[in-house]
Amino acid sequence: MTEPAIAPTRLWSDLMTLASIGALPHGGCDRLALTDADAAGRHLFAHWCREAGLPVTIDAIGNMFAWREGADPALPPVLIGSHLDTQQPGGRFDGPLGVLAALECARALDRAGARTRRPVVVVNWTNEEGARFAPGLMGAAVHAGSLPLAEAYAATDRAGRRVGEELRRIGFLGQGKGPLAAHCYLELHIEQGDRLQHAGKTIGVVEGTENNLFLLIDCWGENAHAQATPMRQRRSALLAAAAPITEAEQIGQEHAPAGSAGIAAMDVLPNNRINIPHHARLSFSATHPTSDGIEAIRTAIAAAAVRVAEQTGTRIELEPAPVRPAVDFDPALGDAVEQAAADLGYGTMRLRSRAGHDAIRMAPFCRSQMIFVPCEDGISHSERENMTESDAAAGAAVLLRVLCRMAG
Amino acid sequence: MTEPAIAPTRLWSDLMTLASIGALPHGGCDRLALTDADAAGRHLFAHWCREAGLPVTIDAIGNMFAWREGADPALPPVLIGSHLDTQQPGGRFDGPLGVLAALECARALDRAGARTRRPVVVVNWTNEEGARFAPGLMGAAVHAGSLPLAEAYAATDRAGRRVGEELRRIGFLGQGKGPLAAHCYLELHIEQGDRLQHAGKTIGVVEGTENNLFLLIDCWGENAHAQATPMRQRRSALLAAAAPITEAEQIGQEHAPAGSAGIAAMDVLPNNRINIPHHARLSFSATHPTSDGIEAIRTAIAAAAVRVAEQTGTRIELEPAPVRPAVDFDPALGDAVEQAAADLGYGTMRLRSRAGHDAIRMAPFCRSQMIFVPCEDGISHSERENMTESDAAAGAAVLLRVLCRMAG
Repeated sequence: MTEPAIAPTRLWSDLMTLASIGALPHGGCDRLALTDADAAGRHLFAHWCREAGLPVTIDAIGNMFAWREGADPALPPVLIGSHLDTQQPGGRFDGPLGVLAALECARALDRAGARTRRPVVVVNWTNEEGARFAPGLMGAAVHAGSLPLAEAYAATDRAGRRVGEELRRIGFLGQGKGPLAAHCYLELHIEQGDRLQHAGKTIGVVEGTENNLFLLIDCWGENAHAQATPMRQRRSALLAAAAPITEAEQIGQEHAPAGSAGIAAMDVLPNNRINIPHHARLSFSATHPTSDGIEAIRTAIAAAAVRVAEQTGTRIELEPAPVRPAVDFDPALGDAVEQAAADLGYGTMRLRSRAGHDAIRMAPFCRSQMIFVPCEDGISHSERENMTESDAAAGAAVLLRVLCRMAG
Repeated sequence: MTEPAIAPTRLWSDLMTLASIGALPHGGCDRLALTDADAAGRHLFAHWCREAGLPVTIDAIGNMFAWREGADPALPPVLIGSHLDTQQPGGRFDGPLGVLAALECARALDRAGARTRRPVVVVNWTNEEGARFAPGLMGAAVHAGSLPLAEAYAATDRAGRRVGEELRRIGFLGQGKGPLAAHCYLELHIEQGDRLQHAGKTIGVVEGTENNLFLLIDCWGENAHAQATPMRQRRSALLAAAAPITEAEQIGQEHAPAGSAGIAAMDVLPNNRINIPHHARLSFSATHPTSDGIEAIRTAIAAAAVRVAEQTGTRIELEPAPVRPAVDFDPALGDAVEQAAADLGYGTMRLRSRAGHDAIRMAPFCRSQMIFVPCEDGISHSERENMTESDAAAGAAVLLRVLCRMAG
């Protein structure tokens, strides 16, 4: 048996091949969950798994599990992977890197003739992004038992189509099972921030997540004719909503670089050109590594809402939403990632994730750990999302080394 | 034969009865064009027409025509009416007043045993509002020959349903015809502004419409993760769009009370809470009685767009849209309205419409004229839309008097 090793060109080739499915004109991808493009990506992944001799099972929420036997099949497996679905528009790496690197790890074990004690399972989680069906992290949440299957099935997109129907339509409503227990879960992902790039480090040892705050800001005005209503009689919800957008940005700037804040989404009713809107709903989100920081942001946006409502004579309500508190990953697994990176000569940095990941849902289910690699300028969820071939290979190599250690 | 006279309580009762179809909790209505509620309103109107002995024909775009014979059936008829569809939410009077007052005029002629020389045709135009299917004023435009039927059929709502399919679904895709020529078209409508109320006048003699300007303002940013992207790397199209919303309002205030301006609708892409949007499209509209005024507004919003783009580092484009120039109604008909109101002892005011109306599409087809009556505080396209029973009756009485004169 030789030492297992990643084939960097194969990994990069797989990433670029997958990126051709749902390819967008400016270098990005659109494989929104449970669309035809998502199905095509899933079929390609299943094809590669079969080529690698890994049987694939699909569970009731469409999670795909590719199984590599261990010397002791009774032992809980090491689970590695991420997701193949994207935002719309999305990039080529957010998600696929973790799945395809995991598959390449399995092939690396084969090439080396290695047999691990524990089984190794490569996973593609369903609907991580949540861009079409809320909530995101859906497949991992169902697998970990924190989201009832029936609730996931009932989630609808803006056209009223349901997860259950769409899973059946694309042929990925399975009857198989994932591992009922797992020894641990490992996920490789691009950082989606620029801390690694700024520090000149290759491997991020992810200690957990930061505090996340989501709030809905409802601005209420009065419906009226958009051309005929006298200016002094107008009370536009859209006009009232303009101020919180800029206030949220200022709050984010004031808390940068540690924290962030902003408005990303907005729905206007009735939203046609001859009606002054009576309702505008803003989706505010913020992150901060400390509880004090996230509470300061919450206080600031609430104060801004009160101020703007007074200034515009409209009613503004904040839907009380709990802070999604920081999640900690497994310290021993973090040490293992750091050691593996050091063994391979890569510079490391400890950091926390600002974005949500399947590993957050897996953490209560089994010991979980993420490995970050740099992405260009911290840009993701974008056609501009980019990374280097060598960083992809470095991340996969660290994943393989930790996997070997954990699988025995 | 006695002098024909409106029955005010019947007209008000009809308005309130119709308002129960699609009734909303705060006093408004939702009978969006070609929905089940619109169909129910149409069936009620057809029932009342049959009760009044008026045969109803329905044309290929769903316009409903109720015919009252004249002594000389060969003469082009006098056409009177408006529309029964509403905004979402809409009020109880914008549209129905003109249709139900016209029907009451026909009943008043019957009660008086009056026989006019010309036929009288009461019309309910399809999809005046344009809230679900663009363009608005659809039925009148098809009838007047300015919108091809096939183009109207192909218009889709946000769910992708087409006008042609929806007309067939609700059973109002007819094979009948409206009058191929009309002697004139008369339309009674609430003012949708507060000039009559402020002046203490009951009848508005509508000289025509004001200049209307519609512009699409496209704000372009960069797609990115809404939580993980460093604040300094963000270029949100939504943030860039906030400034034009307030700038448009200021321009409107500066040109008030003669002119108006504002942003009524906004689409954000991709519009989910974890993506910084790359595109926000604003729908700007403005009115002004003079060409100089409307051009000044156009120049001001264009300058604001350039300024905001520079300040926010984003790209802002204005889709060049021609001013919808002022339309003039028939001066002799205007004089006839003024005379009829004076004969009945109602105070009058000459004014121009800021909103679009079916009469605008009819004006090139035949001599056309509108009669305005006050609406409370100038509020329309709103559940708060309101008017008095006596003003409704006054408008119907003036309509009847002009009708008698024109129909001979």
